[in-house]
Amino acid sequence: MPRVRVNNIAMSVDGYAAGPEQSLDNPIGVGGHRLHEWFYPTRSFREMQGLTGGDEGPDNDFIVAGNRGIGATIMGRNMFGPIRGPWVDEQWRGWWGEEPPYHHHVFVLTNHPREPITMQGGTVFHFVTDGIHAALKRAIDAAGGQDVKIAGGASTIQQYLRAGLVDELEVAIAPVLLGSGERLFENLDGGPIGFDCTTFVATSAALHAKFTRIGS
Amino acid sequence: MPRVRVNNIAMSVDGYAAGPEQSLDNPIGVGGHRLHEWFYPTRSFREMQGLTGGDEGPDNDFIVAGNRGIGATIMGRNMFGPIRGPWVDEQWRGWWGEEPPYHHHVFVLTNHPREPITMQGGTVFHFVTDGIHAALKRAIDAAGGQDVKIAGGASTIQQYLRAGLVDELEVAIAPVLLGSGERLFENLDGGPIGFDCTTFVATSAALHAKFTRIGS
Repeated sequence: MPRVRVNNIAMSVDGYAAGPEQSLDNPIGVGGHRLHEWFYPTRSFREMQGLTGGDEGPDNDFIVAGNRGIGATIMGRNMFGPIRGPWVDEQWRGWWGEEPPYHHHVFVLTNHPREPITMQGGTVFHFVTDGIHAALKRAIDAAGGQDVKIAGGASTIQQYLRAGLVDELEVAIAPVLLGSGERLFENLDGGPIGFDCTTFVATSAALHAKFTRIGS
Repeated sequence: MPRVRVNNIAMSVDGYAAGPEQSLDNPIGVGGHRLHEWFYPTRSFREMQGLTGGDEGPDNDFIVAGNRGIGATIMGRNMFGPIRGPWVDEQWRGWWGEEPPYHHHVFVLTNHPREPITMQGGTVFHFVTDGIHAALKRAIDAAGGQDVKIAGGASTIQQYLRAGLVDELEVAIAPVLLGSGERLFENLDGGPIGFDCTTFVATSAALHAKFTRIGS
């Protein structure tokens, strides 16, 4: 069975997955880059930027493993872009340039319909207006037997956790106190429960903690 | 200068320092013991129980270091006992039996006056009704040049963090999702800020992350 996975979500020790005041200039909020200091030096991140080299240690291994076996991605509209409300025009095509690092079908949760966008390298952005269950069904179909990643942001992950639809939840805790921002573990109605910790490993730059739904 | 320290506060990955429904039967809330699984096997914990043996690995080292150089302790009233409101009688003398593991002056924040209690082994419980600054002044005087520990619970730590009075903040993150309970990093009015992470080490049982106030 395909699994629904959340991998390598960066979080501060005080629980924030993004800094405050997210905007076009600060897509992950003020100070949010401090959550990703473990990520930037890795070979995987540099590859996403079209660069060579980079660290190949454990932090990189977690990124590689988190992307392995993923056949489709779901994300919230605010992860796709900074525009709120109706699409003013069709110009915004995501943060990632003409060849996004997904290379598969990506389902963007939104209240505002828009035609799919086919990017270079195999990424197709679809805009889903009929909710998280519909998006998951389409993503599972598109994944062709592989797993589905819930990429973020925090509120999208919370919606899938609240619905009990997540099989694997992996966070990367950065050695930072952010003080404010968007919490990852909030609005969960008493959950998540029913997860076992199956990985708990720290590098000097991040603690990688993976939780697996019991029985999944 | 004596420093104000918070050491080895256990917290779940989702940010809870205690489980829900704290009571006489569940002093750290339902499931709260899961936050301390790293602590129970240690030699230090066993010594507190009057037992010998126990693990002497890194988890134990953090406990020993966290207690080293402490000359006085401050705690909230709910950490001292389960009684809320006025003291009905003088029978409750803390959770720790006749010889508590402090061996110095302990200042309990409360709204309800009570005479000090002298325990065996050097612990004296004082009940402070005039606020966190007064308690800290008395603790610094009593510590005789050593540091002051803010022992907990979460709301007491938050009060000292909010007032900018904490020099060192060390958490022990357990590989657990608790789902609900009492958060550590909450009610902080946008803080804590101004801390550097100076230790970030995981065992299989806990991530030990220490933050030190910049300039302290």
